[in-house]
Amino acid sequence: MTIHKFAFADAKLERSPGQDGDVFTGNLLDQRHGGPVTIGFGRFGPSQTLEETMAVHDTMIILEGTITVSDGHKSVTAGRGEIIAMQKGDKVKIRSHEDGAVTAYVTYPHWQ
Amino acid sequence: MTIHKFAFADAKLERSPGQDGDVFTGNLLDQRHGGPVTIGFGRFGPSQTLEETMAVHDTMIILEGTITVSDGHKSVTAGRGEIIAMQKGDKVKIRSHEDGAVTAYVTYPHWQ
Repeated sequence: MTIHKFAFADAKLERSPGQDGDVFTGNLLDQRHGGPVTIGFGRFGPSQTLEETMAVHDTMIILEGTITVSDGHKSVTAGRGEIIAMQKGDKVKIRSHEDGAVTAYVTYPHWQ
Repeated sequence: MTIHKFAFADAKLERSPGQDGDVFTGNLLDQRHGGPVTIGFGRFGPSQTLEETMAVHDTMIILEGTITVSDGHKSVTAGRGEIIAMQKGDKVKIRSHEDGAVTAYVTYPHWQ
């Protein structure tokens, strides 16, 4: 393998699996490349909500806007340059605010 | 485990291992927490250079400034909101520019 550079414009965004809201994700590095992690970008429209049970460990870096994640016990809100880490098996509600959000994500193991 | 939020100000920055330049890193989630990845923030002063053989797979998200990574065959430059992915075993030169840089990183497996 080799070094890679990824920009948001490189991502082919598709609607996030299992939901019909304004949340789009695009993998840029994944099992096709042989490494251990999946890397991609996500885009949330304003005031969107996703509820899911995490299939993988997911580190989400907020590049624009604001994201709130709650797991029933705890709620965290992160803005630009901040990180939210979710663990495999966590039942979470992921919510964008009025300004929407752009995120980068790194998952282990691979996610699609 | 549970959900976590991390901000740059949370990181206890220390000089990056094996070098004496103006490059500081701070882990926020690592083997102490039981998950598979290490998450942290880094800060590069202006025009710093690190040469190393990657001990882990490292995804670096540029939060401020600019970083160039070269492996002898290829050179990539990334700015705010862009990602550089390096693989375990890569021999790399990591360089900041005049404006320095702030980065977030996610490594697999753990790094310290």
